[in-house]
Amino acid sequence: MAKELTGTAASPGIAIAKAYRLKHSAYVPTKVTVSDKEKEKLRLTKAVEEARTELEGIRELTERRLGAQKAEIFEAHMLLLEDPDLIDATREKIADEGINAEYALHEVAQSFIEILKGMDNEMLRERAVDVGDVAGRVIARLRGETLATAAAISEESIVIAEDLTPSDTAQLNPDYVLGFVTEIGSRTSHSAIMARSLELPAIVGAGSGAAEIESGVTVILDALDGRVLIDPSEEELSRYRLKKEAYETRRKELRKLVDRPTVTKDGHHVELAANIGSVEDLQKVLENGAEGIGLFRTEFLYMGRSSLPTEEEQFQIYKHVLEKMAGKPVVIRTLDIGGDKELPYMKLPSESNPFLGLRAVRLCLSRPDLFRTQLRALLRASVYGQLRIMFPMIAVMEELKAAKRLLQEEKEKLLSEGVQVSDRIEVGMMIEVPAAALAADLFAKEVDFFSIGTNDLIQYTMAADRMNENVSYLYQPIHPSILRLIRTVIQAGEQAGKWVGMCGEMAGDPKAIPILLGMGLYEFSMSASSILPARQFMLQASRSEWAASVAEIMAMDSQEQIEQYVNTKLRSEA
Amino acid sequence: MAKELTGTAASPGIAIAKAYRLKHSAYVPTKVTVSDKEKEKLRLTKAVEEARTELEGIRELTERRLGAQKAEIFEAHMLLLEDPDLIDATREKIADEGINAEYALHEVAQSFIEILKGMDNEMLRERAVDVGDVAGRVIARLRGETLATAAAISEESIVIAEDLTPSDTAQLNPDYVLGFVTEIGSRTSHSAIMARSLELPAIVGAGSGAAEIESGVTVILDALDGRVLIDPSEEELSRYRLKKEAYETRRKELRKLVDRPTVTKDGHHVELAANIGSVEDLQKVLENGAEGIGLFRTEFLYMGRSSLPTEEEQFQIYKHVLEKMAGKPVVIRTLDIGGDKELPYMKLPSESNPFLGLRAVRLCLSRPDLFRTQLRALLRASVYGQLRIMFPMIAVMEELKAAKRLLQEEKEKLLSEGVQVSDRIEVGMMIEVPAAALAADLFAKEVDFFSIGTNDLIQYTMAADRMNENVSYLYQPIHPSILRLIRTVIQAGEQAGKWVGMCGEMAGDPKAIPILLGMGLYEFSMSASSILPARQFMLQASRSEWAASVAEIMAMDSQEQIEQYVNTKLRSEA
Repeated sequence: MAKELTGTAASPGIAIAKAYRLKHSAYVPTKVTVSDKEKEKLRLTKAVEEARTELEGIRELTERRLGAQKAEIFEAHMLLLEDPDLIDATREKIADEGINAEYALHEVAQSFIEILKGMDNEMLRERAVDVGDVAGRVIARLRGETLATAAAISEESIVIAEDLTPSDTAQLNPDYVLGFVTEIGSRTSHSAIMARSLELPAIVGAGSGAAEIESGVTVILDALDGRVLIDPSEEELSRYRLKKEAYETRRKELRKLVDRPTVTKDGHHVELAANIGSVEDLQKVLENGAEGIGLFRTEFLYMGRSSLPTEEEQFQIYKHVLEKMAGKPVVIRTLDIGGDKELPYMKLPSESNPFLGLRAVRLCLSRPDLFRTQLRALLRASVYGQLRIMFPMIAVMEELKAAKRLLQEEKEKLLSEGVQVSDRIEVGMMIEVPAAALAADLFAKEVDFFSIGTNDLIQYTMAADRMNENVSYLYQPIHPSILRLIRTVIQAGEQAGKWVGMCGEMAGDPKAIPILLGMGLYEFSMSASSILPARQFMLQASRSEWAASVAEIMAMDSQEQIEQYVNTKLRSEA
Repeated sequence: MAKELTGTAASPGIAIAKAYRLKHSAYVPTKVTVSDKEKEKLRLTKAVEEARTELEGIRELTERRLGAQKAEIFEAHMLLLEDPDLIDATREKIADEGINAEYALHEVAQSFIEILKGMDNEMLRERAVDVGDVAGRVIARLRGETLATAAAISEESIVIAEDLTPSDTAQLNPDYVLGFVTEIGSRTSHSAIMARSLELPAIVGAGSGAAEIESGVTVILDALDGRVLIDPSEEELSRYRLKKEAYETRRKELRKLVDRPTVTKDGHHVELAANIGSVEDLQKVLENGAEGIGLFRTEFLYMGRSSLPTEEEQFQIYKHVLEKMAGKPVVIRTLDIGGDKELPYMKLPSESNPFLGLRAVRLCLSRPDLFRTQLRALLRASVYGQLRIMFPMIAVMEELKAAKRLLQEEKEKLLSEGVQVSDRIEVGMMIEVPAAALAADLFAKEVDFFSIGTNDLIQYTMAADRMNENVSYLYQPIHPSILRLIRTVIQAGEQAGKWVGMCGEMAGDPKAIPILLGMGLYEFSMSASSILPARQFMLQASRSEWAASVAEIMAMDSQEQIEQYVNTKLRSEA
């Protein structure tokens, strides 16, 4: 029998292939005195140039395979090759101390990394990884080597690594790499996000056991159940080949549902939409048959740059998304920055509890110029499709009214300038602050729609930071208290004749979907890969039956009990 | 006409007297080379001894006037005089650099302060003030001076200062100091808390205008309306003398209500209780006629020390409080540490959003030994009065059941050891997490009472840190969403036959009290000084009339509208 490891299934699927161990060089240069300092500096210059050429190659490859946005990281790496704190400082160290370039660069990079790691800023801390990556690349060139690279893989493999850096994932060729396993990481780490984006089966956080998997050994990667089988028996191989086949057959069946409208057995239409975070995600949205975009996060427009995006830049992006969706509705959320998301060039105040601070619409209302620019770009784009504008983090009526007033003012300005604005724009708000959910009946009079943001709503209702492992036991999406709030919102929308959607992770959760359907939720917005399974469920589900179940569920007093009930009912129907 | 300043009324009352400007020495020593280093070190030793004698005097004075707990700060100051990082380091600096003791100490203290200020720990940052205070005292002694001291005031005065340090407030003699005004600070700063504890009229945060008030000029301090009048006219003086008289007459009227039971005009009894944070607060509780203690915060037992308090230490305190209250109910809240309250010796995890982290009962359940010690102390004390044990920050049923299980286990252990435990202990929980409020009907079956903690409940429901000025506009106690949650809790209690109280600041707010009465709240727990005004209101109020008003209020859509309604109704009844 195979040795077995367990980890977090970060991206679903099953793969069977030989392991390819991607080992980052553990080489640490030793200090050598050099007689010819000038020659040593020339060696450094040459290695930097070679590293630049390598990076340019990786950048192009990435842009072609994954799009321009994902390739930006390598521009940052190339910029580091020009950073005086890294390269000039190394040159000076060679000149001052008469030592070899490898050691000088290693020392300079290490102290740079230490400084970055000590910063009270998540983005700067992450830069430390990039500095290490770039310095390692140059040091490899100084030794006449090329950094171990996933691009070198030329037969079908499952990659095993401690973790995958952005440059690693960029180089994974899906023709040969069938999946990967990492020792560290969680569902939200960089490598996990990339795996889902590439639709590669992946298990992260498999622990130090993964370090013992040697290249060449056969591995079964079951990223449906979070299992890695090392050197499996024939019996295990044939069992998992069947499981893989069944999974792929199901995927093919699902593909047939791409163009089917989502109507329940008892004739109710629900809208299955997708959450996207960048323009590059659009392809997957269309491939998976989304009936619209339920959440377009606009933060990426503001991140990874050194100044605010202009109205024109934003307009072009919004227009592009609306055109691509060809008349299907697109909910664009206004800037949701602050909280855990920072913009170095905006100098946001440092806060003791950023999740309870000046974020999203609160920040936008405190900087109306920034907000007006985004609203104008949205209004101008509105004529290219079915735009729905959504304000995040509304807690009290004053905020909604202030945001709507700014929107109206910009609309009037544009019209008076002779610019066309659609008169079919819908204006809505997220329900993610408990206060807003509790007063949904009052808000319903002032909006065209609600979209429930469960990630934050759960966090605030439970008073538990969803990123804090110490209190992760409190993150209970189908807890009675959360379901009561959600029902309050859906009922308020129904009574006012406004549609209610959901764009938190819960909307794509197979255990939550039946309850939400029974409560009368209209729009479900989720990651693109969850849409087809959700449609399959909807096509054979009866909304009225689940509505009857909801009546029972609402009398239960724990998530555990509710989960059991839903599972039993789902099994009895399957 | 007088020059007028406005500020935050931190402690109510009116005072008229000459200004006494308490100016902290702005003296900065200059560097002088000394020939005899040994003599310089001896000067330092002598000055340190003199400072110690001064501090011991202040400590005794404070203990006599304000109790042992308030005097502890001076023990900390005396310990600093023995701190090698301060005094030994200064000695070394004198020896190494051959400079004067004043300058050496100043330099050492400054770099110490810088380090403390840079710490990611509120308590350590506050220590910086103490280091400055102590160094200043020693430097004054080196110059043959005594630090400017409030203890020197020997005629009726209103103290004017930039801010008051703990050693300043400790030295205020209420026989002469009739009130104070500070340039900086808020309702929750140290000086404001001390003013309320001393019942001294005070205005804080009056701005830089206060710096221009010179000693000797007559000042009217109106800490009812937050006004300071400098050099008032005769007309102003007589007007404010009348206002002061009216206020004092009203205070005397209120004193007559000390022993009156709190029964509304239409015959409903409500319980007016006090919030306390230490044993020293008990005197004020009894003087103000509290019908019980609605919140005894036990944090002080754990703070300002270097290790956990023992079971015996805790038992003695709980016993003392129960005995003092002579059979009146005492709600003791189990440890609510974490969030903004830290214990250096416990090494709590550093969290990105501590208000959403491992705090209160969450922390206690994760460290059951610590929790069991407190529960045993409470159980042993229970026979000395009417004990009500309350668990803070309960969000989900699992937590309440786990806490109750530990309590039951300790009770059984004590009984089997032959220790007496009361069988009349009530066990309840705070409602301060929105999830708990939303599921109050489920929790009501498992507790004897609820106490609504509005400070946190509002913070989480609005998703706004109550300490963060950027979002302070969201702290709206009588907002419709908050009132709906509160009503849900009161109704759930009523239906299950369990009493419901409130121990947040809202319970003592004259604008909120009528609404809460109308909703059927039974227990109102507030700062001792708010009890008699609340009783006066209750005696002439009709609960049924306010219940009718609540029906109207619940249809309103903003705090502003509700506030207006209540004010109008209160005025029409006055």
